[in-house]
Amino acid sequence: MYLRKVQIPSRLIEAAVDQMATLPGIGRRTALRLVLHMLGRDAVRVRDFAEAMVAMREGVKPCSTCHAPTESETCATCSDPRRDGTTLCVVEDIRDMLALEAVGEYRGLYHVLGGVISPMDGVGPADLHIDSLVIRTASKGVREVILALPASMEGDTTAFYLARKLRETEVLLTTLARGVAVGEALQYADEATLSRSLSNRIPYAG
Amino acid sequence: MYLRKVQIPSRLIEAAVDQMATLPGIGRRTALRLVLHMLGRDAVRVRDFAEAMVAMREGVKPCSTCHAPTESETCATCSDPRRDGTTLCVVEDIRDMLALEAVGEYRGLYHVLGGVISPMDGVGPADLHIDSLVIRTASKGVREVILALPASMEGDTTAFYLARKLRETEVLLTTLARGVAVGEALQYADEATLSRSLSNRIPYAG
Repeated sequence: MYLRKVQIPSRLIEAAVDQMATLPGIGRRTALRLVLHMLGRDAVRVRDFAEAMVAMREGVKPCSTCHAPTESETCATCSDPRRDGTTLCVVEDIRDMLALEAVGEYRGLYHVLGGVISPMDGVGPADLHIDSLVIRTASKGVREVILALPASMEGDTTAFYLARKLRETEVLLTTLARGVAVGEALQYADEATLSRSLSNRIPYAG
Repeated sequence: MYLRKVQIPSRLIEAAVDQMATLPGIGRRTALRLVLHMLGRDAVRVRDFAEAMVAMREGVKPCSTCHAPTESETCATCSDPRRDGTTLCVVEDIRDMLALEAVGEYRGLYHVLGGVISPMDGVGPADLHIDSLVIRTASKGVREVILALPASMEGDTTAFYLARKLRETEVLLTTLARGVAVGEALQYADEATLSRSLSNRIPYAG
């Protein structure tokens, strides 16, 4: 609140706060706190911080196959001969890929869309890596595409759009199971989740 | 959670996340989100961000008088001849100074301690700008020192320490009024605040 009324008494701090506040989820008040923290550091540490950001932005490129960020032409997953190239898992961004990798069970490849279709945010199909997904899917050998997209309006819209796009490839389209989380009490699950876990119930495998 | 188990598949992203996560209140998960956001930006914008941090750290120094960050030898407040040099307001950091300045009523000068005494965090009196406060207070002309420190164990400890240090200067020591906030309902005020607003009650000025 007070930041609107009072000018920060240094043009350089003001500029740093402006930059910090461009990060998602960082308001001007938090930005000022972070910048003042930076100000209290050794200059060499601030330089290290700045250089790490620039080096990351300049050294990391999307994998030419799956669009996951990588420092080489092809990412470590795509170039791993032990991965199963017949299955592609489509994710919104690399964080979802990392979450799935953490489980350590999936042996197929990924395709990072780079977002989901969201007219509200001005994100259309052309902004996502959809064409390359269609080409990969149509290539010989791909048998299954797992749509691991968020369970939201945008995720559902994107899945629907992809399904239509991939219809001609005759690939098996699957999606992640949605339901009550392991360890979660039924009474605390939300209605949509309970509804899905009921309608998608599976044979008891005891 | 998954960040502990899975390695981020790029040394450069990992290094940037490490740096981002050194900021206070930014965990590794948030750091990854911010770094991936950076990755999606134009390289020139990332460079601007990095340069703003370095320029801020290198161009901003503590005011030689009050220790508020400034780009000159003496900050704008200290060098403003219209400010009343007989009153010093002691604050923990510049954000508190900015909050007070936003009110636009205080015409005296400030003294930025740079923290409060906190044995738990390894902050002792020697880490704060206390010696220069004693020297400023002892200089001719200073009549009142307002202790505008946080109402916490650390703030109280610091105020007590400063009061002892400044006892010999025979300056008038005051502290900010604590009580029920303007517009706040009595029933929602916490006990400590209510207790203070009662014990520090003042004559009704109708």
